[in-house]
Amino acid sequence: MEKDLYTLAKDKALEYFEKAHIVLTEKEKNEVEVADFGLGDLYQTGLESVVYINTDNCCAKEMVLFPYQTCPEHIHPPIGDHYPGKEETFRVRMGTVYLYVEGDPVSNPKAIIPKNSEKFYTVFHEITLQAGEQYTLYPGTKHWFQAGSEGAVVSEFSTHCYDEYDIFTNPAIKRIPDIIN
Amino acid sequence: MEKDLYTLAKDKALEYFEKAHIVLTEKEKNEVEVADFGLGDLYQTGLESVVYINTDNCCAKEMVLFPYQTCPEHIHPPIGDHYPGKEETFRVRMGTVYLYVEGDPVSNPKAIIPKNSEKFYTVFHEITLQAGEQYTLYPGTKHWFQAGSEGAVVSEFSTHCYDEYDIFTNPAIKRIPDIIN
Ligand SMILES: [Zn+2]
Ligand SMILES: [Zn+2]
Repeated sequence: MEKDLYTLAKDKALEYFEKAHIVLTEKEKNEVEVADFGLGDLYQTGLESVVYINTDNCCAKEMVLFPYQTCPEHIHPPIGDHYPGKEETFRVRMGTVYLYVEGDPVSNPKAIIPKNSEKFYTVFHEITLQAGEQYTLYPGTKHWFQAGSEGAVVSEFSTHCYDEYDIFTNPAIKRIPDIIN
Repeated sequence: MEKDLYTLAKDKALEYFEKAHIVLTEKEKNEVEVADFGLGDLYQTGLESVVYINTDNCCAKEMVLFPYQTCPEHIHPPIGDHYPGKEETFRVRMGTVYLYVEGDPVSNPKAIIPKNSEKFYTVFHEITLQAGEQYTLYPGTKHWFQAGSEGAVVSEFSTHCYDEYDIFTNPAIKRIPDIIN
């Protein structure tokens, strides 16, 4: 990702955090992570986040999704003998999020499936989360999510986050962003 | 705790959550926990909280401390062979919190030690947390905390929460509140 785009997206994310009254330190503001998942189409497929804590046991972060921005379909696999895969709870703080998991599919998803990536979206059990609502994903549940028209701010509470092990349905995705400084 | 006091404290806690722009569902608003730790002096020693999630692995909650209200000194012990004790991160969302842990004591703590309970406060390494600041406690660290003059709203991210196993320095404390309905 080009530095200019990073800076633009970071500043936009900070506006969402401010609107949601999420207080961040200057250090956190400077370290907002912007991920385009290596697809080079950030506003369609991307995620902005601030990681508060990620110990061996607990992870908590705050995320921003711009309007219709999608965190693409993935699963958190078991790692080694002792880690069954990440468990995560999403709690929406502002806006609306459409979350899709395995299970009975809806016929008309409210989210707009990212263009030219339709075949990499395979689960369509729809959960709509408004501000104040939350959903817990246990290990081994394929999922993806998208913000509604106003964008969204979402807290994530989870077990240790090993982003580098996530398995995306789209094999072209690279989770760890290259930021050109 | 008398029902009237519970209702009063619950409504007051909801005002703090609103001021901090924490969005809660109606169900969560109705289930605010008010703990006086069995000491019958809620505004001095007490804690108001909403538990978002408490699975085998993760717990997240939102807490309110009224001005100078204290969560009394305690430790989270190991339980069985597999649980080393609760690990917890406190992130202040609004107000100021004075957190005390084991280590180099301060000579003039900023918190006001609860009256007639002085002997049950033994750790005085002081950490001051403003909105946007946080601190992580690893298992086996004795701690207590108090809000400053404006009260505080604090998020807690932790491993599974077994309140009933907490060990308080004051043996008169009962963690699980009796609410008279
Ligand atoms: Zn995930
Ligand atoms: Zn504690």
